[in-house]
Amino acid sequence: MKVDGKHYRTVWIDPKDGDVVRIIDQRKLPFEFVVEELRSVEDAAVAIREMHVRGAGCIGATAGFGMFLAARESAGTGGDLMARMRDAGEILKATRPTAVNLAWAVERQLRVVGEEEGEDVRVQAARATAQEIADEDAEWCRRIGEHGLDLIREIAARKGENAPVQVLTHCNAGWLAFVDHGSATAPIYAAHDAGIPVHVWVDETRPRNQGARLTAWELGKHGVPHTVVVDNAGGHLMQTGQVDLMITGTDRTTRTGDVANKIGTYLKALAARDNGVPFYVALPSSTFDWKRRDGLREITIEERGGEEVSVIGGSPGRGEAEVEVRLTPEGTVAANYGFDVTPARLVTGLITERGICEASEAGIQALYPGF
Amino acid sequence: MKVDGKHYRTVWIDPKDGDVVRIIDQRKLPFEFVVEELRSVEDAAVAIREMHVRGAGCIGATAGFGMFLAARESAGTGGDLMARMRDAGEILKATRPTAVNLAWAVERQLRVVGEEEGEDVRVQAARATAQEIADEDAEWCRRIGEHGLDLIREIAARKGENAPVQVLTHCNAGWLAFVDHGSATAPIYAAHDAGIPVHVWVDETRPRNQGARLTAWELGKHGVPHTVVVDNAGGHLMQTGQVDLMITGTDRTTRTGDVANKIGTYLKALAARDNGVPFYVALPSSTFDWKRRDGLREITIEERGGEEVSVIGGSPGRGEAEVEVRLTPEGTVAANYGFDVTPARLVTGLITERGICEASEAGIQALYPGF
Repeated sequence: MKVDGKHYRTVWIDPKDGDVVRIIDQRKLPFEFVVEELRSVEDAAVAIREMHVRGAGCIGATAGFGMFLAARESAGTGGDLMARMRDAGEILKATRPTAVNLAWAVERQLRVVGEEEGEDVRVQAARATAQEIADEDAEWCRRIGEHGLDLIREIAARKGENAPVQVLTHCNAGWLAFVDHGSATAPIYAAHDAGIPVHVWVDETRPRNQGARLTAWELGKHGVPHTVVVDNAGGHLMQTGQVDLMITGTDRTTRTGDVANKIGTYLKALAARDNGVPFYVALPSSTFDWKRRDGLREITIEERGGEEVSVIGGSPGRGEAEVEVRLTPEGTVAANYGFDVTPARLVTGLITERGICEASEAGIQALYPGF
Repeated sequence: MKVDGKHYRTVWIDPKDGDVVRIIDQRKLPFEFVVEELRSVEDAAVAIREMHVRGAGCIGATAGFGMFLAARESAGTGGDLMARMRDAGEILKATRPTAVNLAWAVERQLRVVGEEEGEDVRVQAARATAQEIADEDAEWCRRIGEHGLDLIREIAARKGENAPVQVLTHCNAGWLAFVDHGSATAPIYAAHDAGIPVHVWVDETRPRNQGARLTAWELGKHGVPHTVVVDNAGGHLMQTGQVDLMITGTDRTTRTGDVANKIGTYLKALAARDNGVPFYVALPSSTFDWKRRDGLREITIEERGGEEVSVIGGSPGRGEAEVEVRLTPEGTVAANYGFDVTPARLVTGLITERGICEASEAGIQALYPGF
């Protein structure tokens, strides 16, 4: 998508500059727009662990490029390139335990590179695979937008010409969370670009405020009308008929349709069910965890440091760099769970690159037979 | 309750200093402990409107003292004291439209003072009534603690000696929200003082962070173990068996048991229901709105300025005064609904000064016949 008129992806490789990998450092948004260079797999691991990049697709693509960097670092050192890549894969997978795309990108690289012989060929295969992962991610998100557009078009037709379709979203499953387009936002961008009036309620998404910082920023850059609300507000909005559709992303979805997503998603799904609001989850199929059936029992929920809750960053004035302030009394303990699991029973449907399906094993298998 | 070893109420009158009314300025907590003087009904109105004081009981008591200040201001001016008090009552009632205790305190003052004759007698009646309102509030909260203690004792017995009873609360229905003891916190303090191990999950409570700022502060001062979590976390805590009991306060409860409380309460009530966690609402009976039957249709939800969402205050360092920082991109619009309504069907029971009852007209009438 565009930033001040120039097209960007969230992570890309620049052949003009010795195949350096570049990312948008999302920690600085919305107050500063900073592009960062990744020159080693350690740089990539830090970028993922410290959340310079975040979001399922963007993490996966960055891990893909990280594996290329690992291969390139190993070449010519006399070491075992595959062993080095396996080690790199372990390091990358450990950075964010809940993100399924991480493991998926790492394993894809190991499989493809393992089939080649010779260091140079292997490094080139790793580069090509990283690029493929990124390109696929962008293309899949584009298709998610097409399928989701049908849902929004239907609601718009029911509401009449001038009433905007009201969409609530949680966290940032926008283009910043992927390589381009986004998952939850893809249908919104598609509808907006098709001239359908859309208004987005943007959940702030504590503790890291990805909604208030990132989703608000990217919707604003694209010109989509939106309003930020605290995470507490969604139930009231639904009770008062102000939400037509809820769409979120997911960090990991089981083969039975249980959805691990940003902490708080489950609460909104409950409110959607209680108020008859359709609750959709948008995801490229790389986000399915085909090995898991029971999200509540089988998905490890990442616990992060309590200071992400106790301390918050913001800008003290227009154009001023971010500062951090403490929100709690000195010495207060805070707990910080990154995700929760929304059981499939609360999910109206999944919007994938292949189409929309029921959040059930049968529904998913109909689109993804053999997985 | 105690602050650094000295007993305080949240609002009180000091006869040694010409009957000045004093409040704890809760905007400054937890970073500064400041006592403010109210010398006119306008001071009282500003204190309520600008949330120097907040919480059902504390607002009601402050309004009661405000009506005394109005009477005293009018006396000797040659004006119509009752007319002046009625005007003052309208000003006070307009400061926070959702808070039922406000109107209740104002009307009680008008009724009592209206029955007297003579300016001096009326001013003294207003003073005595304000004190009575404050004393009753403190006594009712103490009784709420006694009744709620039974619930906690029962859970503790079931869990066994060393396992703390895990209570989740939202916002601040603590002693700071009343004159003393609190409503939702009263059973917690009672249990803690009775030697029952209790641990409190404190919802941060965006946008004004009354949980992270006030509940954490007062529990800390009293020595009750607690952990701050973001508002998004409660569903996950309940799904994983980490909550035995949820207790919140309420700003207004209908005669049928619908509960208007801080925005986000409804989401937690849904999660409690989905996970079989008992969801109790603690309230002195002054918080009942006997005229209303349908909370969703009949209770006006206060909308406040969006800058409470976009801008947050915190301390930049230990002992440093609070500063404000912007959380959203420049120019982003935010909406700010103060409350939501939790339908009675989601409420396990009401803990009142007369005992615990079902959240239904029949249940409430059994404790409060004739209302």
